[in-house]
Amino acid sequence: VAENDRPVVGVIGAGFGGLRVAMALRRAPVEVVLVDRRNYHLFQPLLYQVATAGLAPGEIAYPVRASLRAQKNLQFRLAEVARIDLAERRLYTSTGAIPYDYLVVACGAETNYYGLASVARHAVGLKDLDEAVVIRNHVLRMFELGAQERDPETRRAMLTFVVVGGGPTGVESAGALSELTRLVQLRDFAELEPQDLRVVLLEATNQLLSGIPQPLQIATAETLWQKHVEVRFGATVTDFDGYKVTLRSGEVIPARTVIWAAGARAAQLARSLEGPKGSLGRLAVEPTLQLPGHPNVYVIGDAAYWEEEGEPLPMVAPAAIQQARCAADNIIRQVRGEPPKPFVYQSPGSLATIGRNAAVAEIGRFRFRGFLAWLVWLVVHLMRLVGFRNRLVVLIYWAWDYLFYDRAVRVIMPDARWPWTVPGDDRRPGAGPNSNTS
Amino acid sequence: VAENDRPVVGVIGAGFGGLRVAMALRRAPVEVVLVDRRNYHLFQPLLYQVATAGLAPGEIAYPVRASLRAQKNLQFRLAEVARIDLAERRLYTSTGAIPYDYLVVACGAETNYYGLASVARHAVGLKDLDEAVVIRNHVLRMFELGAQERDPETRRAMLTFVVVGGGPTGVESAGALSELTRLVQLRDFAELEPQDLRVVLLEATNQLLSGIPQPLQIATAETLWQKHVEVRFGATVTDFDGYKVTLRSGEVIPARTVIWAAGARAAQLARSLEGPKGSLGRLAVEPTLQLPGHPNVYVIGDAAYWEEEGEPLPMVAPAAIQQARCAADNIIRQVRGEPPKPFVYQSPGSLATIGRNAAVAEIGRFRFRGFLAWLVWLVVHLMRLVGFRNRLVVLIYWAWDYLFYDRAVRVIMPDARWPWTVPGDDRRPGAGPNSNTS
Repeated sequence: VAENDRPVVGVIGAGFGGLRVAMALRRAPVEVVLVDRRNYHLFQPLLYQVATAGLAPGEIAYPVRASLRAQKNLQFRLAEVARIDLAERRLYTSTGAIPYDYLVVACGAETNYYGLASVARHAVGLKDLDEAVVIRNHVLRMFELGAQERDPETRRAMLTFVVVGGGPTGVESAGALSELTRLVQLRDFAELEPQDLRVVLLEATNQLLSGIPQPLQIATAETLWQKHVEVRFGATVTDFDGYKVTLRSGEVIPARTVIWAAGARAAQLARSLEGPKGSLGRLAVEPTLQLPGHPNVYVIGDAAYWEEEGEPLPMVAPAAIQQARCAADNIIRQVRGEPPKPFVYQSPGSLATIGRNAAVAEIGRFRFRGFLAWLVWLVVHLMRLVGFRNRLVVLIYWAWDYLFYDRAVRVIMPDARWPWTVPGDDRRPGAGPNSNTS
Repeated sequence: VAENDRPVVGVIGAGFGGLRVAMALRRAPVEVVLVDRRNYHLFQPLLYQVATAGLAPGEIAYPVRASLRAQKNLQFRLAEVARIDLAERRLYTSTGAIPYDYLVVACGAETNYYGLASVARHAVGLKDLDEAVVIRNHVLRMFELGAQERDPETRRAMLTFVVVGGGPTGVESAGALSELTRLVQLRDFAELEPQDLRVVLLEATNQLLSGIPQPLQIATAETLWQKHVEVRFGATVTDFDGYKVTLRSGEVIPARTVIWAAGARAAQLARSLEGPKGSLGRLAVEPTLQLPGHPNVYVIGDAAYWEEEGEPLPMVAPAAIQQARCAADNIIRQVRGEPPKPFVYQSPGSLATIGRNAAVAEIGRFRFRGFLAWLVWLVVHLMRLVGFRNRLVVLIYWAWDYLFYDRAVRVIMPDARWPWTVPGDDRRPGAGPNSNTS
């Protein structure tokens, strides 16, 4: 790989962490090999918008190669990393082996079902584009099937949308789902009434958005409630068979749709590495972000365990971005023969949106809520979206939604399937390409 | 269904024909039940743009319910019609039976593989959104795999893109593919050179765009050739096993990608109806577009066989739209007790684009080519796109492409799969939702 004796830096993952590491090494005397199983960088904070038909997949995903086109010392490989051989200093991938001198593990997190097999089978998480598209298609199809369903109980179950988990993803998804169903879909379904619809947010503890100050937590719950989201505290899911959600209390909620935003854990690749782990399988790192015993290996982002004032860092983009800068700097220092420096975390504040005109924000000593926080949220997210075109189109879509209560992307794509079959939907419309084989 | 004794008009299909019939019956004293297995109206003339990463699926598809929101006498049913019982006057669908008084069969066409089973299995047609997305993902993945492939023969096969059929779809696809691969993708793949790429257009006869005047046919072939499309005449495909295309001449072209635009035939539902058929399984109709022997049943669009000056009407949107108006008028006349009137076809001319700045057009006595024809094509297609938002966004995308030689939608979506597995791609990145089941 190294054609000119420069050290090779392998980077696993083109998320917020991996992409920034690659960019930060732009002028360093190294060759960067960036590996991801997707060809795009995903703007995960807006994934719930794809799931709720507000944005199209392409608006929050940007090809890695297009982002890094100008970078001469970089190669991108579309491949899945099967194994990291720390002794050999080699990645084994689906398209061959990649030797490295330095390595940055930025493979991120995956949905955590906490061992609930039935939930893992019948619910859908919200970590990648395919899941978001599957949720969108399923929700839209439930409206079409519900509108044709004569049995009132079945219809109600089809139109009950359950979100599990009161973190940012759950709160934002529940708020957006409520607006999609009540403000947008109902206009197109004369057969249905608001009374037919339920959006339920199940949270196991007694608070939403556990990281933010209590007054904002209370405001969040109140805003969701005003938007007709049934916010339920102390609600621990123990089972979902595709037809009904069962809580630990014994309560049963008939529903065909469960969006699982209740937790994440380090990706399988990180968990499979030997060494001390923090909670959720995250790899414990040195103060310099190096893997203990492997000074040429850095772990950043969701895959890394880091404590700040006794609390583990949340799995959020700003943490990954800050760690990426530190890891890239430390690699450059090591190449120069200097010792790496410890990582220092600076909290960027918290932001979460709860739909039209409503959000909560904590930035430094300032706390906002309502319309002002929503404007802050809008500007921050538009600024951060990769690529000028995306930003422009996203702005147009949002302005349209805002003015006309419409949603851009309410097309049920035939091929993306909900992982289980709804009765009455067994005859899946169109079996994909070549179903009409002669 | 009929709550008020008004006759029920069943309409099968929400394509150009079915949608216009439904709209034309807006003020008629009837109840319309529109059935489609998709929840969207597809702007098929731009489908090749989705396949070549120029537009996102949502830009050329618009929800049927959103289009017909204001229409009080209409119900939409997302369902697949399994059978038409002409005697009982009933549609049997995947969500139940629908009785009708009048029926409009506008179920369109499907890809015709002419009995070539291996082609049907390994190539992909271009009739619906899922196929377009599958083609886009596959072409983009071939670039990623080709860039990592060391064997030069394998790499060349991965980067050989074969389009079969010299009709409008084939010509437009080949032109757009050539531009995507040479002007856009090469900028992002420093590993590849123009010499690694082939775009091949295979046409069985000696002419492209058989309906238009010969000078425009020649100009079309010349323009494609200048864009580095290998235009091959007299090339009849007999086999494609996923690795190589075999022609009747014995010629073999190693290629991993075949887009099959060589033919269409009436959809299965139309072919399954009894009665006289024209070519390609299209249902012969009375001069009034009624099904012979069934005065309450109309057949329009690709499903109907209609001769104009001894030639069957082409399977194009303008024909379906004109027939839709006639069928709707005739149903209104029948409801009033008047006799139906015969259909009169007015040729709208021909238009085909061959990429940036190039198109051919014949409108009445006028023939255009080159940039002027391209402008005509652009304006005509933008005007016809359903929904103001779509038009605006499509215009922005196209302007961007034109100015920056970029493509909007180069994200490989994980879940849409090419129907066969490429060696080296056996470890499919991500098995979709819930692959990370604990």
